[in-house]
Amino acid sequence: MGTLKIFCDLTCDEGVAKLLRDGIAPHQLLLPAAPAATVLAQSAPDPAIWDADICFGQPDAKAIIAAPNVRWLQVTSAGYTRYDTPEFRGAAADRKMVFTNSSSVYGLPCAEHVLAFMMAQARQLPVGLRTRCSSDAPEWARLRAKSVLLRGQKVLILGYGAIGALLLPMMRALQMEVVAFRRAPTGKEGVLTVSQNQLENYLPWADHVVNVLPENPGTRDSMNAERFAQMKQGAVFYNIGRGKTVDQTALEGALRSGRLAAAWLDVTDPEPLPEDHPLLNLPTCHLTPHTAGGHAGEHRNLVLHFLENFGRFIRGEPLNDRIL
Amino acid sequence: MGTLKIFCDLTCDEGVAKLLRDGIAPHQLLLPAAPAATVLAQSAPDPAIWDADICFGQPDAKAIIAAPNVRWLQVTSAGYTRYDTPEFRGAAADRKMVFTNSSSVYGLPCAEHVLAFMMAQARQLPVGLRTRCSSDAPEWARLRAKSVLLRGQKVLILGYGAIGALLLPMMRALQMEVVAFRRAPTGKEGVLTVSQNQLENYLPWADHVVNVLPENPGTRDSMNAERFAQMKQGAVFYNIGRGKTVDQTALEGALRSGRLAAAWLDVTDPEPLPEDHPLLNLPTCHLTPHTAGGHAGEHRNLVLHFLENFGRFIRGEPLNDRIL
Repeated sequence: MGTLKIFCDLTCDEGVAKLLRDGIAPHQLLLPAAPAATVLAQSAPDPAIWDADICFGQPDAKAIIAAPNVRWLQVTSAGYTRYDTPEFRGAAADRKMVFTNSSSVYGLPCAEHVLAFMMAQARQLPVGLRTRCSSDAPEWARLRAKSVLLRGQKVLILGYGAIGALLLPMMRALQMEVVAFRRAPTGKEGVLTVSQNQLENYLPWADHVVNVLPENPGTRDSMNAERFAQMKQGAVFYNIGRGKTVDQTALEGALRSGRLAAAWLDVTDPEPLPEDHPLLNLPTCHLTPHTAGGHAGEHRNLVLHFLENFGRFIRGEPLNDRIL
Repeated sequence: MGTLKIFCDLTCDEGVAKLLRDGIAPHQLLLPAAPAATVLAQSAPDPAIWDADICFGQPDAKAIIAAPNVRWLQVTSAGYTRYDTPEFRGAAADRKMVFTNSSSVYGLPCAEHVLAFMMAQARQLPVGLRTRCSSDAPEWARLRAKSVLLRGQKVLILGYGAIGALLLPMMRALQMEVVAFRRAPTGKEGVLTVSQNQLENYLPWADHVVNVLPENPGTRDSMNAERFAQMKQGAVFYNIGRGKTVDQTALEGALRSGRLAAAWLDVTDPEPLPEDHPLLNLPTCHLTPHTAGGHAGEHRNLVLHFLENFGRFIRGEPLNDRIL
């Protein structure tokens, strides 16, 4: 194997850039004319991709398809909707291009984000943090009575995978009961895992429904009015997966009717929601702006994850987080 | 043993009141002229206390001292500062009066509240929940980069007891390192537990210092300027114990200087803080109004805890949560 050319459009500080350069040496780093703005935004097509053997970042999908030599693409995100097209899959199959993502890097922060949402709901932090009252005020008694012990409560995780597996010991340390849902249970999940035909039995069971579903034609709008109506009265819904898996009008209805006590969303469709969107004006709907995967050291961890796979690529071993 | 008279000034709904009446039958329940407003506020002296053998609630300390027959007092709080006087201790010793509190009832909600604080800080929820931005905005990158993975971070629990023991498995599920501090380690804590002379070694070690200290002459203002100066740059301070254990001026200084990244307080001195208090105007200081122990079912759990001890009292067995 001669010198490989690795195109990378991840914006990172000098320390992380050096980590990458040193890690791939003696192979060659190709930098873009303009780096990707973020780990979510797609870069402009870049002429350097044309020469690349390997791409790492958020390169333009059409440029990858057009480039003659790319044998492996690793994206810096967990989601990969923009590469999940017949054209891209076809091109990848034609030239045996490997496609990996960075979901390993985002599993832990996402799991911790879900736990943060759940704890903030249980302890009523959105109201509590803005309430200044003495212990003889009616709102004090209300706030205490609305706080809920998580011990013994029931959690249904939709789209059980790496994030769910990280959530499981956290939920269990809180002595919560957990059931997982995934399209094709393997029996090796270490937790009762149900598939499509049992979902209607477990939605009414759960006090907390955690949506970690990826976006694809089978999951789009899968949390719809019918599903929300199946949920337990007063349950809480969390979305840490992808916004398009939820029918937001149905969610709004479930919140307005009181069927759901609250919703905690890190993802929406679109992002951000327009200022006049009804979900933004519901006091029971709490949103963070797609920050669940973020963490100090994120770019360093993305590069370390790439370098681990780069070593595997060189040695001809199976890559982590492989999609295609 | 003849019919016992049990004075109870806990305000509760009919279901919980029935649970109490049925649970003590055939012994007699004495109700106050006016029930205690809350589980924290002291009731007015009540003439019914004069006849009581047992008191349960927040009865006036002087009335208990004056009453001739009280052999056991169980308070509905965890704290008991107003009974912790030489007069009360003397009267209790003279008549062999047993004194218990309800700390068992509050341990779990308090531990969950600490976890909620810690997760909200790690995931930057106070800023995140009010930020609406797209992924190319500078505040988006800042918010993600300020989020911190808890895995591998270090927690020091000050005043290790029932709450600490409940926190321990939660922190360990997050793969955090925990060290406990208590006045007199027993060696049975199940976690490295240090005492006064080692505190200065572990304050600089911890990313998170969780104060669960009770209030007494030895703990008052014990988190002072010197202690805050010993903490790690950028550490986070939590107080779920008692407000008077913290020198609030010193805390304000530590937040203003940036020594502490944030403080999360469920207790202050006084409660609530006056509207112009400097801690209320610091964006890095987050407060809930002494609601950490509150939870749905709290009054029911207080009565169940009392009835468990009532059975023990009748059978001459040691009581739970005994103070004197």
